[in-house]
Amino acid sequence: MATNELERSVPPSRYKKLEAELRPELLAAQERLHQARFPTLIVLGGFAGAGTSEASNVLRQWMNSRRIAVCAFEPPSAEERERPEYWRYWLSLPPKGTIGIYLNGWYDRPLRDLAHGHSDEAAFDRDSEHIAAFENALVVDGALLIKLWIHLDKEARQKRIAALERNPLTRWRVTAGTKEGWKYYDEFKRAADRLLHKTNASGARWQVVESSDPHYMLVVARAVRDAIRRHLAQKSRPKCVGSDWPRAPNVLTQLDMEKRVPKKEYQALLERCQGRLYRLTQQARRKGVSTVLVFEGADAAGKGGVIQRLTVALDACIYQIIQVTAPTDEEHTQHYLWRFWRHLPRAGRVAIFDRSWYGRVLVERVEGFADEAAWQRAYGEINNFEDQLIDHGMVVAKYWIHIDKDEQLRRFKARQATPHKCWKITDEDWRNREKWDDYEAAVDDMVARTHTPAAPWTLVEGTDKRFARLKVLETLCQRLEQALASG
Amino acid sequence: MATNELERSVPPSRYKKLEAELRPELLAAQERLHQARFPTLIVLGGFAGAGTSEASNVLRQWMNSRRIAVCAFEPPSAEERERPEYWRYWLSLPPKGTIGIYLNGWYDRPLRDLAHGHSDEAAFDRDSEHIAAFENALVVDGALLIKLWIHLDKEARQKRIAALERNPLTRWRVTAGTKEGWKYYDEFKRAADRLLHKTNASGARWQVVESSDPHYMLVVARAVRDAIRRHLAQKSRPKCVGSDWPRAPNVLTQLDMEKRVPKKEYQALLERCQGRLYRLTQQARRKGVSTVLVFEGADAAGKGGVIQRLTVALDACIYQIIQVTAPTDEEHTQHYLWRFWRHLPRAGRVAIFDRSWYGRVLVERVEGFADEAAWQRAYGEINNFEDQLIDHGMVVAKYWIHIDKDEQLRRFKARQATPHKCWKITDEDWRNREKWDDYEAAVDDMVARTHTPAAPWTLVEGTDKRFARLKVLETLCQRLEQALASG
Repeated sequence: MATNELERSVPPSRYKKLEAELRPELLAAQERLHQARFPTLIVLGGFAGAGTSEASNVLRQWMNSRRIAVCAFEPPSAEERERPEYWRYWLSLPPKGTIGIYLNGWYDRPLRDLAHGHSDEAAFDRDSEHIAAFENALVVDGALLIKLWIHLDKEARQKRIAALERNPLTRWRVTAGTKEGWKYYDEFKRAADRLLHKTNASGARWQVVESSDPHYMLVVARAVRDAIRRHLAQKSRPKCVGSDWPRAPNVLTQLDMEKRVPKKEYQALLERCQGRLYRLTQQARRKGVSTVLVFEGADAAGKGGVIQRLTVALDACIYQIIQVTAPTDEEHTQHYLWRFWRHLPRAGRVAIFDRSWYGRVLVERVEGFADEAAWQRAYGEINNFEDQLIDHGMVVAKYWIHIDKDEQLRRFKARQATPHKCWKITDEDWRNREKWDDYEAAVDDMVARTHTPAAPWTLVEGTDKRFARLKVLETLCQRLEQALASG
Repeated sequence: MATNELERSVPPSRYKKLEAELRPELLAAQERLHQARFPTLIVLGGFAGAGTSEASNVLRQWMNSRRIAVCAFEPPSAEERERPEYWRYWLSLPPKGTIGIYLNGWYDRPLRDLAHGHSDEAAFDRDSEHIAAFENALVVDGALLIKLWIHLDKEARQKRIAALERNPLTRWRVTAGTKEGWKYYDEFKRAADRLLHKTNASGARWQVVESSDPHYMLVVARAVRDAIRRHLAQKSRPKCVGSDWPRAPNVLTQLDMEKRVPKKEYQALLERCQGRLYRLTQQARRKGVSTVLVFEGADAAGKGGVIQRLTVALDACIYQIIQVTAPTDEEHTQHYLWRFWRHLPRAGRVAIFDRSWYGRVLVERVEGFADEAAWQRAYGEINNFEDQLIDHGMVVAKYWIHIDKDEQLRRFKARQATPHKCWKITDEDWRNREKWDDYEAAVDDMVARTHTPAAPWTLVEGTDKRFARLKVLETLCQRLEQALASG
């Protein structure tokens, strides 16, 4: 194929010699990135027939192909369309220490839309911003992003296609995609110029490779080798400093923790709310509106009890509870948001997160599992993540169930005294309790920085469990009603 | 809900006392199963309105709900229909040490078909066999299966529905499902009787619980507690002994390892095969015929090179290579076939397994990672797994790439002498080599026991890499042509 042609067009011995020198270096770089455990994304952009597949094949052949996954995407399937556009890109990310080769990847749809005139100025800007945000999230997390645009000019392209078509043995290589790319060459060229210009951010620069160059595979391989070497040599990334942010107001002290619902009124009120919630979620199911629920709160705040009362009112087919505990090793090899992306609900379904991505700015911050730069960055990453859910039409409802320190102590003691509840109290709960003030500061910051109009926090006074349960159900019903009315 | 009603119909103090005694015992049993690390599946069967959801809710409330997942299934989605029926049940299995509660689970569709007269005698028998095979695979692997049929007779059911409907607060609980179940009560009852009778295998017995019993939640919880206790007390399961099976004929020695393709003919032959394969896979894509390819072979047999030549001929969008190495921890908590089920291709796509589920009867057998009972059992489990793929219309093509011991030595040495190949040789490869004869015996047994008409092994003479590559491509094209002609 392409390389064979190339081998014929330059003195084969010269090419072979350069290849033989390059391959061990490329392998060594790959081995070092594996040891250094950062993920590498190689985006090979270009029009069908320019040589992107050939470049991908040769890279796989020249490196350890067992640590490389090639990702090419078809138009989204029905289930993919039920999630935000970047869902499938997130799920495809290479684990740390490995390489993902993306054939056009997330550039494919924006490029097509632009070339075929399906996106106006505003849509194009939005696409560019989404690309930048996605790539930036990976880069600041330590990923290496190598973006190569394989370019073949109109004339060379025509010659190559004609040559392939003349030979009955190679004719199959000229696919429908090649022909489409050919027909709209000028439109695609203009679109690519714009898109490349717009998405040429620091840490995510495009490098253009001319595939008419007989040494082009060597150029691609050298670009990969050099990028890996540079990334390895990089000093630790500059920490973003957030300490000059104003201390968030202490929202929790403003809650009226005395709120109560009398026992004798509770059952009827609960049953009424549950019926209402059942009907709303059935309606959302039919309309395809998904719901993402987040429950956070101190130990013993009553999250489990709230979730219990809520799920009783849901058809068991439509919801899933995601218990967020320590990440598994598959999750450990990915960006911290990856394990939440993987659980996004299908259209019309409900995902209930019992603890969530806010762990990054709560437990990981307080316990020091994430460094300051990482958790400071997380506010923006989380807002961006939730924006994608909301843009997709999902309802995002976030609950902080609050109890004060004395109430927690009462509950800990009560649990210890009850045979079927004492398992709920562990040494860790007592340890967490000692850091009560740190957690409160973290909650204040979290609310101040992630309370957005489309994904507001609901702070729930949790002293009285009955009150807390009804408030959650009641406010959730309101959110759903609004969403269904506007949808 | 149900329990509240019940509490009213028996002296509340008596019920509360029994509940208070039972809950710590139930929790203790759950904790012990968590320690013992076996998965527990609780199937709650029954018609809508009989009390299955209520039983599920109470079990979650009485146990540690963070280690329980409730699985209820809607009619299969488009992507689910592209895989064998049991695909979604496999993927939903609870990790070891946890509990999955299944609301009707894999009984739902067979039961409906039977009740509505959509399945004839043969289909019913097939359904029963599939259920038995699935449950047996889990049970022999150490899972605990608890099957409870929640029964409410016609009259009691009618009374309950009427009571719920009379009260405006509880009316929402009477769903369309309840009404459907009511309308076809007699048909469902007859169907359930047959199905329960047929699927009442040892290790997977049904226990019927009358939900008109005011103590019925206690009965359910006790059944769960007792089943866990029994499972924990069980002596180690009897080993199946397979040593009296005849030694398989040595098929590998019958291969003509001298087969060769001259270098000057190779390129044109390869290109021709690749073009043919490209066209066939495009046709399979359009027809929705999926392909599962398995590559096995000794170290340095040339699997990677074969896969490389094969994927060059495939549209990058339609295939996925699954590199099978040591299981991740998520995979470790599951049945050994789980990690292959999760990679089954969508309709029209190709999944290429570079090593596969045959690891169970090759490396795991030879290295002792699986005990004899486990790998002996695996032949049947594998045949059953592949049968499900084939019944679903998938093409299953399995290749053993063979080289002899001398050829392997030559390749090891050649690799060590080549700068860009020496990484391919590790100490482990030399160690495996010492067990050559054990591996050969394992391959003989594997071929003898898993070479089925619908999923035959192709043994590939691998001394000459060119010959091996062409043979794989050629035979794969033939398999695809047959499948597409008959489809």
